[in-house]
Amino acid sequence: MNELRKDYFLDRWVIIAENRSNRPQDFAEEKKPKAKKEGKCYFCPGNEGMTPPEICRIGKNDSWTVRCFPNKFPATTPESGRLEENFLTKQPAYGRHEVVVETPTHGESFGDLGVGQIKDVLYVYSERIKDLKKDKRIRYVMVFKNEGTEGGASIGHSHTQIIALSMIPTLIRNEVNASKKYIKENGKCPFCEMVKKEVKGERRIFSDKNFIAFAPFASRFPFEVWIMPKRHARSIELLKDAELHSFAEMLKNVISRLNSILNYPSYNFYLHISPENEDLHFHLEFCPRVSKLGGFELGSDIVINIMPPEVAAKHYRDGI
Amino acid sequence: MNELRKDYFLDRWVIIAENRSNRPQDFAEEKKPKAKKEGKCYFCPGNEGMTPPEICRIGKNDSWTVRCFPNKFPATTPESGRLEENFLTKQPAYGRHEVVVETPTHGESFGDLGVGQIKDVLYVYSERIKDLKKDKRIRYVMVFKNEGTEGGASIGHSHTQIIALSMIPTLIRNEVNASKKYIKENGKCPFCEMVKKEVKGERRIFSDKNFIAFAPFASRFPFEVWIMPKRHARSIELLKDAELHSFAEMLKNVISRLNSILNYPSYNFYLHISPENEDLHFHLEFCPRVSKLGGFELGSDIVINIMPPEVAAKHYRDGI
Repeated sequence: MNELRKDYFLDRWVIIAENRSNRPQDFAEEKKPKAKKEGKCYFCPGNEGMTPPEICRIGKNDSWTVRCFPNKFPATTPESGRLEENFLTKQPAYGRHEVVVETPTHGESFGDLGVGQIKDVLYVYSERIKDLKKDKRIRYVMVFKNEGTEGGASIGHSHTQIIALSMIPTLIRNEVNASKKYIKENGKCPFCEMVKKEVKGERRIFSDKNFIAFAPFASRFPFEVWIMPKRHARSIELLKDAELHSFAEMLKNVISRLNSILNYPSYNFYLHISPENEDLHFHLEFCPRVSKLGGFELGSDIVINIMPPEVAAKHYRDGI
Repeated sequence: MNELRKDYFLDRWVIIAENRSNRPQDFAEEKKPKAKKEGKCYFCPGNEGMTPPEICRIGKNDSWTVRCFPNKFPATTPESGRLEENFLTKQPAYGRHEVVVETPTHGESFGDLGVGQIKDVLYVYSERIKDLKKDKRIRYVMVFKNEGTEGGASIGHSHTQIIALSMIPTLIRNEVNASKKYIKENGKCPFCEMVKKEVKGERRIFSDKNFIAFAPFASRFPFEVWIMPKRHARSIELLKDAELHSFAEMLKNVISRLNSILNYPSYNFYLHISPENEDLHFHLEFCPRVSKLGGFELGSDIVINIMPPEVAAKHYRDGI
């Protein structure tokens, strides 16, 4: 029976439409990215001079394994300015927009990187977040990855983007406020509750001592996964080395499992970290983009998802 | 300079990224839908027996020009049931899911229909809304159209969908509440204010005695358009005949203008009507789907739009 489901603690609803089919084959449509280069790739070793000046890298001298530099076409602007509040409210989009190239190898897919390499990428996220936060005008740092055409990627060479803004984005603000409200009413963090609830149920995908990956109860996307530390950590840069290792391993396992089920589909993932002086439980949300958001979704903010998370979790666990 | 912009009165932000290009050519990618049938079309005349039993039609006896019937694969469910409220909040997705076929001619595009035909389609929306509201368990009726692959359409024959639900969708609830708040604070309806403001400015596209079409200040999509009655009408079924005619004409003009600029792109549109006992200013939101929502958008609820609405409106007015 089709079901309206609400997110654990956000005012966000989905319709889980079980009556529609939910075999993985219904979603399989994309091809594994090709290693072939088409024209010159700005993100490849040897073309470092074609990107804006490097911010940081992992590697020495002429060779690198992870590399970060400013986005040549930023969504942000270097000018800051006052918020003009009236019927037409606006403000310069002050901030920073950066690119993290995750591998020197063109065509190598994120899920195929080694755990150590993924851990290095996560480490670069941490370092950039720490550094960007030093600018007191920055109120939030959003780390996100667009993979494949449906995920909004425009450059094939595997990379992550970071946008630092002078405002706390709407969704983060709502999540912080809803989390606070939940804590006030229940005396515990809703994410800590999820960990407790989902670690033993049918939506669990993987877990170890430090981290858990599960299909959220009100999944908006087929095969959506949330990955979070079991302990109440506020941000990625506060993770201990062993935790970062667990995180890298779990992220790799989820993505490579999905790649084998759906043959390298498009996806997005993004980090939700706690803004300064707030206490949000850090996590990553992984959203495969194998379905389209249509007029119902845009007009209602309710998403129809034909893949129940309980079925998705089973596919991840069983690998079929 | 890239700009953060807030919706007129909703807590919804976009980044208008002017630094990126905004010529229509950047978005042109799709082909005009072909009139050719691939296999049997369930929505074509002669195949009426293959759809669930007809609800209503415009036309007589064996011929029809607009036809409505239940969706064979509904997102809703006939069973109603109590909301189970706890950490895993859910309820049967009680409601109705219908299809309105807008033309008997396979492959004919909505924007190419005559004004009279579009007016008939809008009339059917009104009649269905009135009828669906008779069920007291129904709290909102969402009318929406998915056009083209990127808009989420799965059947090529031009059609609209209607989903009637036992809840007021999140976005509608937020809009109603924000509108109420605005009215309380300012003594006037924010949509009436938009009409007054946008009818004379650079974001105006078309207007006549009854209706206005404009590119909203905080457009989330390149070429987004809102179409609304100039007077404060609560829903489509309350429009007078001349107003419905203006509405049909303006919708046709907007879509056919966009079709000629971008060669029949994918799009969505949906109606926002007032729930019972509320006082929302009725309007239609038209969202071309020529850009992708990526990880930043999903993770932040802030949309990056590279086409300033002022530029979009000029393209609509000038037709280039």
